[in-house]
Amino acid sequence: MNNFTFHNPTRILFGRGRIADLAREIPAAARVLITYGGGSIVKTGTLAEVKAALSGFTLFEFPGIEPNPTYETLMRAVELARREHIDFLLAVGGGSVIDGTKFIAAAIPFAGEPWDILVKRAKITSAVAFGSVLTLPATGSEMNNGAVITKRATNDKLAFSNSRLYPRFSVLDPSKTFTLPPRQVANGVVDAFVHITEQYLTYPADAKVQDRIAEGLLLTLIEEGPRALSEPGNYAVRANLMWTATMALNGLIGAGVPNDWATHMLGHELTALHGLDHAQTLAVVLPAMLQVRRSEKRGKLLQYADRVWGLRDGDEETRIDQAIARTREFFGSLQVPTRLSGYGIGKDAIPALLAQLERHGMTALGEHQSFNLAGSRQVYELAA
Amino acid sequence: MNNFTFHNPTRILFGRGRIADLAREIPAAARVLITYGGGSIVKTGTLAEVKAALSGFTLFEFPGIEPNPTYETLMRAVELARREHIDFLLAVGGGSVIDGTKFIAAAIPFAGEPWDILVKRAKITSAVAFGSVLTLPATGSEMNNGAVITKRATNDKLAFSNSRLYPRFSVLDPSKTFTLPPRQVANGVVDAFVHITEQYLTYPADAKVQDRIAEGLLLTLIEEGPRALSEPGNYAVRANLMWTATMALNGLIGAGVPNDWATHMLGHELTALHGLDHAQTLAVVLPAMLQVRRSEKRGKLLQYADRVWGLRDGDEETRIDQAIARTREFFGSLQVPTRLSGYGIGKDAIPALLAQLERHGMTALGEHQSFNLAGSRQVYELAA
Repeated sequence: MNNFTFHNPTRILFGRGRIADLAREIPAAARVLITYGGGSIVKTGTLAEVKAALSGFTLFEFPGIEPNPTYETLMRAVELARREHIDFLLAVGGGSVIDGTKFIAAAIPFAGEPWDILVKRAKITSAVAFGSVLTLPATGSEMNNGAVITKRATNDKLAFSNSRLYPRFSVLDPSKTFTLPPRQVANGVVDAFVHITEQYLTYPADAKVQDRIAEGLLLTLIEEGPRALSEPGNYAVRANLMWTATMALNGLIGAGVPNDWATHMLGHELTALHGLDHAQTLAVVLPAMLQVRRSEKRGKLLQYADRVWGLRDGDEETRIDQAIARTREFFGSLQVPTRLSGYGIGKDAIPALLAQLERHGMTALGEHQSFNLAGSRQVYELAA
Repeated sequence: MNNFTFHNPTRILFGRGRIADLAREIPAAARVLITYGGGSIVKTGTLAEVKAALSGFTLFEFPGIEPNPTYETLMRAVELARREHIDFLLAVGGGSVIDGTKFIAAAIPFAGEPWDILVKRAKITSAVAFGSVLTLPATGSEMNNGAVITKRATNDKLAFSNSRLYPRFSVLDPSKTFTLPPRQVANGVVDAFVHITEQYLTYPADAKVQDRIAEGLLLTLIEEGPRALSEPGNYAVRANLMWTATMALNGLIGAGVPNDWATHMLGHELTALHGLDHAQTLAVVLPAMLQVRRSEKRGKLLQYADRVWGLRDGDEETRIDQAIARTREFFGSLQVPTRLSGYGIGKDAIPALLAQLERHGMTALGEHQSFNLAGSRQVYELAA
């Protein structure tokens, strides 16, 4: 096991009806900006429920944070927050809203140009406090300190993180996910699945706890993901998925082990240039990535085949082939295509994707920092 | 899954050499009281290493916190801390030292008689900040807010917890456990094992994440426990055990599921009246407890038989029998006797144990709050 520091101060309020506990989590005198997305929380009544729980608070609203939240949109929220002297942010939505709110929280007190936080790694020395009400289990943003922001003007999709950007609290009410569209449910399962594999399918590091937890989370996604689509009102299924997606990226399974994240980097460029959903990009890239890098990931791929897919017959190469095939089939069973062609993207798109990776400095990726543009080309080609 | 709130703000500094990072974790102006036990940290050099890491700090020492830390001893530390205006405590040792330090932290600012915190559930409204350097993986106290304290004068061994009593940080350096006596290593494995079963072997609650993590931790103990005894200098083994014991009782696997803890309550009385090591009491009580309550625990016992012990042949009763037998054999393989007779205690001791349970109000225990003195009698008798 590698040395690590683990610290996750987010308070999780999990279960039915927990929105009612919001008032206890926010300072009474706070001027609160509620941030959200395209309005589904208006239709479902969740926004009204949040506002009822916060009656007596000074509330403002900023709607319109889009999937793959953009700098351009978020800066309007920053202006509003500065003008209204907002001192608490409450993100109500999925990972995009929470990621966007992290950027807003960091940008409000930032002295210079906030985009420098992403592109120049400018130092964040303070952030406005924030919490979240999660409506879409997927990204894990509700219990971590990272975010991915897109600049529309330049097609840049970049990540940042900071120890000041853990939500103070996150409300996870699984019943709020009953009405999600199937595509978002499936995307959430794929997203969580690939978060886990990025931290698990690397090389053996004598980290048995992390491995067992990762495997348990993957097994839960495999058992519960399809059920969430076939039994959308099943609370237990939704609860297991919600807690799995949070645990998949709250720092625990990635602590003390090598991390990869190359699949995410190749995926980000597919979203930036072709507008695919984040999870769709991961479903395309991961199976090809595992195939291309099967030698360096051999030990963990065999463990994955055994413990996650129960593949114990045949020689090692066969078991690895089967494990990759099962992964692809699982994503397909959720109706998430795993080929570029499934999204109408041809091989002719690959040079531009590689140029984006190069421009973003993504030329030495993976657990060995050795996965280069030649490797990325192989992955995109195999994913065609 | 049941509703739950999860919040664990302890910062974990895990790995070789992390004691060197102590100075960054403690306020520079703090007056620090280092608390420890019988002096093994003096012999091993760990105390010197801690003091070297904190050169420049104003340090005081309080040695002599015993296994099953006593109110009588701890109150001397409270007096010292009040006299010297201590504002940070650093526990260096195992669970007894950390538990004792939690009591000291709560008692220093407490206005009344601090024993009331345990016996009258008196409210704690403040506590002195503290951290820990863990030398013995077992209790999980390094990443939770609970403690068990004994009053020698009356043979009371009682538990308390408070949200202010999470360590600010805990240093977990597995190499510090190389020199532990085999008895303490084995006790630690048993202690962590039973912490997990208290939160896992109850009844099914549709909590797949918690179940999978619990099973993964049990499997790790089964794999690594014996190896820690046979390969005492194996860092990877020690690291896996250390992280497992912490994860076993940091709130994660017990969140959203029924909890039992009856085995602990029956065990505490064995320590209070007969001086057994805490883990020894658990090794005695747990197999008998599972046998007596096999009906109410049936669903989870079958899952435990399957996923932890790989028992899939034979009828259900047979598999439960085998799972309980394997548990007993596992403790025995670590040289921890699982019968009262193994500690020279006869059946004649049982009435006094039951009287203690009654005096402490332990008459409605377990996940259904229905395990009464008649059940406790059965367990003690079966454990004879």
